[in-house]
Amino acid sequence: MAGFVEALTPRETALDHVSAVLRFPWKGEEVPVPVESCSGRISRPLIADENFPPFPRSTRDGYAVVSADCLGAAPGSPAYLTLAGEIPMGSAPSLSIRRGECALIHTGGILPDGADAVVMVEDTENAGNWIEVKKAVQRAENTVQAGEEFSVGDTLLKAGQKLDFRTAGLLAMAGVREAATARLTVGIISTGDEIAPPETVTLPAGKVRDVNASMLSALLIGEGHSVRNYGIAEDTRDALAAFVREALRECDVVAISGGSSVSMRDHCSSILEDLPPPGLLVRGILMSPGKPTLIAGTEDNRKLVLGLPGHPFSCFISAYTVLIPLLNALLLGKPAGPWKRVLVPVQEPVFGHTGIEEFIPCVLRNGRAFPFPVKSSFSKALAEADGLFRLSASHETIRQGEEAEIWLW
Amino acid sequence: MAGFVEALTPRETALDHVSAVLRFPWKGEEVPVPVESCSGRISRPLIADENFPPFPRSTRDGYAVVSADCLGAAPGSPAYLTLAGEIPMGSAPSLSIRRGECALIHTGGILPDGADAVVMVEDTENAGNWIEVKKAVQRAENTVQAGEEFSVGDTLLKAGQKLDFRTAGLLAMAGVREAATARLTVGIISTGDEIAPPETVTLPAGKVRDVNASMLSALLIGEGHSVRNYGIAEDTRDALAAFVREALRECDVVAISGGSSVSMRDHCSSILEDLPPPGLLVRGILMSPGKPTLIAGTEDNRKLVLGLPGHPFSCFISAYTVLIPLLNALLLGKPAGPWKRVLVPVQEPVFGHTGIEEFIPCVLRNGRAFPFPVKSSFSKALAEADGLFRLSASHETIRQGEEAEIWLW
Repeated sequence: MAGFVEALTPRETALDHVSAVLRFPWKGEEVPVPVESCSGRISRPLIADENFPPFPRSTRDGYAVVSADCLGAAPGSPAYLTLAGEIPMGSAPSLSIRRGECALIHTGGILPDGADAVVMVEDTENAGNWIEVKKAVQRAENTVQAGEEFSVGDTLLKAGQKLDFRTAGLLAMAGVREAATARLTVGIISTGDEIAPPETVTLPAGKVRDVNASMLSALLIGEGHSVRNYGIAEDTRDALAAFVREALRECDVVAISGGSSVSMRDHCSSILEDLPPPGLLVRGILMSPGKPTLIAGTEDNRKLVLGLPGHPFSCFISAYTVLIPLLNALLLGKPAGPWKRVLVPVQEPVFGHTGIEEFIPCVLRNGRAFPFPVKSSFSKALAEADGLFRLSASHETIRQGEEAEIWLW
Repeated sequence: MAGFVEALTPRETALDHVSAVLRFPWKGEEVPVPVESCSGRISRPLIADENFPPFPRSTRDGYAVVSADCLGAAPGSPAYLTLAGEIPMGSAPSLSIRRGECALIHTGGILPDGADAVVMVEDTENAGNWIEVKKAVQRAENTVQAGEEFSVGDTLLKAGQKLDFRTAGLLAMAGVREAATARLTVGIISTGDEIAPPETVTLPAGKVRDVNASMLSALLIGEGHSVRNYGIAEDTRDALAAFVREALRECDVVAISGGSSVSMRDHCSSILEDLPPPGLLVRGILMSPGKPTLIAGTEDNRKLVLGLPGHPFSCFISAYTVLIPLLNALLLGKPAGPWKRVLVPVQEPVFGHTGIEEFIPCVLRNGRAFPFPVKSSFSKALAEADGLFRLSASHETIRQGEEAEIWLW
């Protein structure tokens, strides 16, 4: 048991080391996903093949004008323009504007030839065939130029961008109905003689239900991946090795959530050591919780294998801060997490230790971040938390008023 | 057009007013969702019907001890305990501990009778049948008591909590495989003669593709709701009224994304006015963007109808800050948004105006929030943003170093 974790690797070093040795990126399975769907990760940039808008448009209700005609216009000295007509919505305007003229235009309408700006209706008076303009406008004011949203060749989606409500409108604008996303199939193996399947109704004495498989599944599915659950391996090297072999055959990535017994840990590390080269790459990470994390990989048939801690909170931290970034590295070449990193002043101390990177659940109350230490209830801490405090290895306790780093889900 | 928005209602007032007049909560459709799935909203609290853990467990690898035996133990003055045996994983221990004894225990193992704490293996030396304990432990240290995670009657899920990786482990722990979630069916109607269906490949002159329907769909689906898309209504009162009638028959909520023409806006507000009581409740909201938002409802057959602005960014802001909170109010009785509200000092000014609540896209860079004003490209602003700055009506520009309120997705 001593010797299980010999030299702990800092987390970011471990991520970079594994990415470099395994020569990420590899390729995931490509899956087309409807733009309105909300899961999945874009595998490659999507480039615009048309301009949007296709024509110069008004961004306001008002009058299309020649901006030079409105020079110096003000409530006391309005400009008077002849109303030449109304721009129809949804078809090309047949009228064009000459100096001294204007045309009624609605938000989204095509700017007629000759016009170079739009005066908002609020800044005008309608006097029959005359329009009184009471405010000067700059060239292009209240308009959007053709191709201003995006032009042919512009990147619509960056590699790794997630499909959600933020991208759905953009893709609809560009006429894209499905986007190519990359996903990985991750095999999940649970170990531990005390673990019973989650569907167990009445638990035998000494058993608890498998928490990690469900938690990992939800985390991975939420990140757009596909999950295969292999159930619970018996506490023998042969049993675990058979599970790992099967999972390696069917999946891109295998995550073993660790049994508590010494023998199971030994089995796990010995199986990872015996993988084809480069095999076991990281044997313990300098983080708390999550220390007993193992990372291995095979370059030939491109498989990534992780051994995650058995305690559900440690397992979660390891999956969230190591596994997910590694899956992104695998697909995109660079480790990246799903969190939003924000620096915030804290209202009460966040207790930590130097020499090790620490993660503590964080809850937001009235816009302020508070630590929610995992004491008695891991499950409540995770269910209530809005994210994590991250205390780098060089940080001890963060005092009241000092800035802390939070990672929001 | 003048007169369309007469008296603007502050957003929060509007949400509370609508919730009160329509006597929320109403009932949504109840849908069972697997705990590993990542969408869906819990309609009602879920209560634990068992204790977890079912027995006192060790949270460490080490030795189960009687804490009184280790009083004052230190590296220079260790306590010596007799090793009575090893606690098996996954079954009830047959051995119990007397004063002066200890038992090898693994993380998750059942605390044997007689023991009241666990000494970590790092704080011991193994000397054959004797274990040298070099650190004192408190009663219950490194253990979790039966029922400490949760006990019979504890709330496992609060009403409105979302199912995701944070709840999956907790539910698995409790043996719950499916949770009851509530969802609403939202009908989406687009209007505007310049709008073409999103699947249009070659746009006729003057037309643009429908952006709002896709964006609203993705937003609603991401919040766990179901969407029916009715397409684009022609610019006549009868055409729009027929769409609204059909959607009201089939959906709980109808969202009309607004056409740009004056007549279409008039049609929309007149149709909402003609709904059964109480009908049109809010006619414009004191926010920017998103002002021309209409809210109506019928109490008899419990339908909620919104008119959203036509400009995609305004439509998004209105949907995110008004529609989604109203759907939560409908299901839960209280308006609540999906955002994470954080107060952060800003590094550069965020320009705003007093007298109106404003929303400006916000991007995070190196843990700091920067404004990303929607200038030329709405779609890029939304796709790149990590959230929104919210400037309340009483806030003008927020200066460098001052605190701003951000709402992160």
